[in-house]
Amino acid sequence: MAQRALSVSRMTGNRSTFADWYQAVVREADMAEPSPVRGAMVIKPWGYGVWEEMQRDLDRRIKDTGHENAYFPLFIPLSFIAKEAEHVEGFAKEMAVVTHHRLKNVGGKLIPDPEAKLEEPYIVRPTSETIIGDAFSRWIKSHRDLPMLINQWANVVRWEMRPRLFLRTTEFLWQEGHTAHATQKEAIEETMRMLEVYRAFSEDTLAIPVISGEKPENERFPGAVSTFSIEAMMQDGKALQAGTSHYLGTHFSEAQNIRFQNDAGELAFCHTTSWGLSTRMVGAVIMSHGDDDGLKLPPAVAPRQVVIVPMLRDKPEDAQVLEFADGLVTALRGMRAFGERLRVLLDTKATKSADKRWNWVRRGAPIIVEIGARDAASGTVTFMRRDVLRDGDKIRSHAMPRDEFLAKVPGMLADMQKGLFEAAKVRTLANIRRDIGSWDALAEYFGAMSDDENSEFKGWVRAPWSKPSGAELEAIDTKLKTLKLTLRNAPADQPGSVGPCLFTGKPGVEEVLISRAY
Amino acid sequence: MAQRALSVSRMTGNRSTFADWYQAVVREADMAEPSPVRGAMVIKPWGYGVWEEMQRDLDRRIKDTGHENAYFPLFIPLSFIAKEAEHVEGFAKEMAVVTHHRLKNVGGKLIPDPEAKLEEPYIVRPTSETIIGDAFSRWIKSHRDLPMLINQWANVVRWEMRPRLFLRTTEFLWQEGHTAHATQKEAIEETMRMLEVYRAFSEDTLAIPVISGEKPENERFPGAVSTFSIEAMMQDGKALQAGTSHYLGTHFSEAQNIRFQNDAGELAFCHTTSWGLSTRMVGAVIMSHGDDDGLKLPPAVAPRQVVIVPMLRDKPEDAQVLEFADGLVTALRGMRAFGERLRVLLDTKATKSADKRWNWVRRGAPIIVEIGARDAASGTVTFMRRDVLRDGDKIRSHAMPRDEFLAKVPGMLADMQKGLFEAAKVRTLANIRRDIGSWDALAEYFGAMSDDENSEFKGWVRAPWSKPSGAELEAIDTKLKTLKLTLRNAPADQPGSVGPCLFTGKPGVEEVLISRAY
Repeated sequence: MAQRALSVSRMTGNRSTFADWYQAVVREADMAEPSPVRGAMVIKPWGYGVWEEMQRDLDRRIKDTGHENAYFPLFIPLSFIAKEAEHVEGFAKEMAVVTHHRLKNVGGKLIPDPEAKLEEPYIVRPTSETIIGDAFSRWIKSHRDLPMLINQWANVVRWEMRPRLFLRTTEFLWQEGHTAHATQKEAIEETMRMLEVYRAFSEDTLAIPVISGEKPENERFPGAVSTFSIEAMMQDGKALQAGTSHYLGTHFSEAQNIRFQNDAGELAFCHTTSWGLSTRMVGAVIMSHGDDDGLKLPPAVAPRQVVIVPMLRDKPEDAQVLEFADGLVTALRGMRAFGERLRVLLDTKATKSADKRWNWVRRGAPIIVEIGARDAASGTVTFMRRDVLRDGDKIRSHAMPRDEFLAKVPGMLADMQKGLFEAAKVRTLANIRRDIGSWDALAEYFGAMSDDENSEFKGWVRAPWSKPSGAELEAIDTKLKTLKLTLRNAPADQPGSVGPCLFTGKPGVEEVLISRAY
Repeated sequence: MAQRALSVSRMTGNRSTFADWYQAVVREADMAEPSPVRGAMVIKPWGYGVWEEMQRDLDRRIKDTGHENAYFPLFIPLSFIAKEAEHVEGFAKEMAVVTHHRLKNVGGKLIPDPEAKLEEPYIVRPTSETIIGDAFSRWIKSHRDLPMLINQWANVVRWEMRPRLFLRTTEFLWQEGHTAHATQKEAIEETMRMLEVYRAFSEDTLAIPVISGEKPENERFPGAVSTFSIEAMMQDGKALQAGTSHYLGTHFSEAQNIRFQNDAGELAFCHTTSWGLSTRMVGAVIMSHGDDDGLKLPPAVAPRQVVIVPMLRDKPEDAQVLEFADGLVTALRGMRAFGERLRVLLDTKATKSADKRWNWVRRGAPIIVEIGARDAASGTVTFMRRDVLRDGDKIRSHAMPRDEFLAKVPGMLADMQKGLFEAAKVRTLANIRRDIGSWDALAEYFGAMSDDENSEFKGWVRAPWSKPSGAELEAIDTKLKTLKLTLRNAPADQPGSVGPCLFTGKPGVEEVLISRAY
């Protein structure tokens, strides 16, 4: 087999080694690493660079839909969390608790100072509905203050016993939108608007196709009336919930007294929403587009879209090579793609140029240029495209005159962005089974899967269900768990009529997605 | 007296009411407000918008000098803090301590679950030298890995008993740079380079003149070999430390084993630096440029540089007013200032246009345009410049044809930016006394000041000193405290020779700045 840039492949022989491959990409592409703090990660510059590009793009979309950024306290008084009953129930199990505000040196050992014990403990925000709701209760007086459209970029903490870099970490970074409205109608419109913003961001910027829909009751956000999600299929067939948008009804406004004076002069509770998208999307990018050579970044979020590696040999020709490379960098930086200036790097680190090439392949830089003395002398640009890196097992290299290369760069990047999305879309659609109509068939289909993280590829099942609730739904959920399956969402795009429920045999009311998930 | 946009003036009769004025600006310009979490603030959209503009500009400067952003854990294991002795000493008194990772419902009351007590408590980062140093010890192996140039944008927590919005809050936002180098020389060059980045950012972007220099020993960062600062004079004469840059020697690399193999193949400790600038700079902008009508924002960091208020009267002419306003917005958004697209707002909120005008005056929007039916009909733009708002007590309004206005906007914004800086520079220079050469004279000069926050304006004293250290310096510091004074820094720009030390009478070695401070 040909040598690959990465130490682990997605498949090893007939066996899936996807989970090991994921870890290898995160490590070998310098995306992140575990930290000495249980469950928390260090996001390394290349991984953080991808997040910064995501932030820039999503922030623009959030502002374009009329929201303003603000910042609220990291700590939440314990009593706030207790205000919304379901919210407590859903979050109480996994919060970091601050109990002291000073350390004391006792016999050379640092301990929390007993005299500095907080009267009321603070919890480190797992999400900010309660602390932002408190501000809303002060800020909102009349219908003229509505809608209140706020977004926050922040770190949040939810204790994780089985952490996975980017996908599930004790601390993660995200944006959380919080809005208040005069009517249910407006709040639901907002909920759907932001779900659509997430879909467009995921598909257009991250090149990740998703299915938008409503989560079943048992998967709702604690305290929400309804929760909507976008779900993406990873290359191992598992689902990744990529963003959620919640209509909270008046649950939080009743708990926190968020009221406004309506046209008629009466006090009424606001209808609120919240929606969030996090650093787990970096994991989604890895698992949607990566291959056995490592990461493959959609150009729209690549921290460097073109990387230039000068092949220096400590010879007089080096000066000419560097001059040619510098000229290329300057020309490229003057150009634009995806509405921004091109992001270009001249890699002059003191390491071997072959090592640099493989490094940038692993990191998924879209276009990698290697400039040798002959290129510089003839004005030729030799480069690789990360999306079509190989011809069979061989590396595919392109060479063309400088001006032709420069003219083609923006188009190549746009092609790559489109190509990554199309490939992921084809893969996703091809792996949603719609012909499984009974529990037995479902059990047979997924039952063969091992419990191993690196389990066989099975994709999703889309099937009719009768949308049961309460105890009936819980029983189904428990049964699904025996197959390690979960209900993902009921896609917004539904057929006119559906067959009988896969679980209950009753008449179906809609189709629902079933799969293993991250 | 003329009506002002703000409820409190900087002076009330002969009495300074600067501290009350500051609070009024923060509140009435919608910058921030206290939160239910002791000492922590809510940064409201307009205040956060200013911080976002600061971040964008400073982030570019930090990247242009070769640094990369990354993200490290919020929590720091207690044992890490204990590693660097002076660092413990300096920070141990003011940290939030996380002791539990779960809550438990006991008889309807939420308490930290005793079974989820952490074996080793975590502290919430007050600064990240130790947790980033731990990563550096893994990342750095050889001289080829150096310099390591990392920056982090983050929230940090230092318990504050006497909080003040933006200036001193339990939680604040900042960037913290952390770098490692092969030699002392390179590390000191880095320390000075970032001090200069802060100076340029403060003066060019925030229009705040500063004095760069080295902090005296007693004001050093805990664990640093030397600390440098930029100091800015607020309108009440007090100093505000606006940014600091530290050369840490090998203190942290010895405590954390940050070593590299040098050219000769030997293991050597890295020389490290750190430098930070925080949301307190928003407070500095307020206190440098504000006036009795509220905030006056330097256009480079104004979230909206031009605000357009259509004067609507529920009449048929409204359509024409809105059409004219929309056209103006579109034209302005196509223009650039300070290397970015113009930031323009059309304020269509359902409140009275006079209220809107005063709102934008208080918030310090640089150019405020009011469009009435006559303006729309005649193609005239009527506007106010926030920097020269009044002619005596009267509001100064300008009117000119649309095209002339459009042509003049970028130049006006540049003028305002320059004018704010020049005014602050003149004020700062005029209020540094250099003729006070003895302790008695110093005591006489500052002794008359009351202890009130709103104390009389006295500015700074710049005087020669013998740069004492240890106990001698501590005695001076204690003596200065009786006058509520502190040593700020020894300016980088020193005269060829200096007189005798103001404190000791010994031969002076350099001049030092003395003042009250935030």
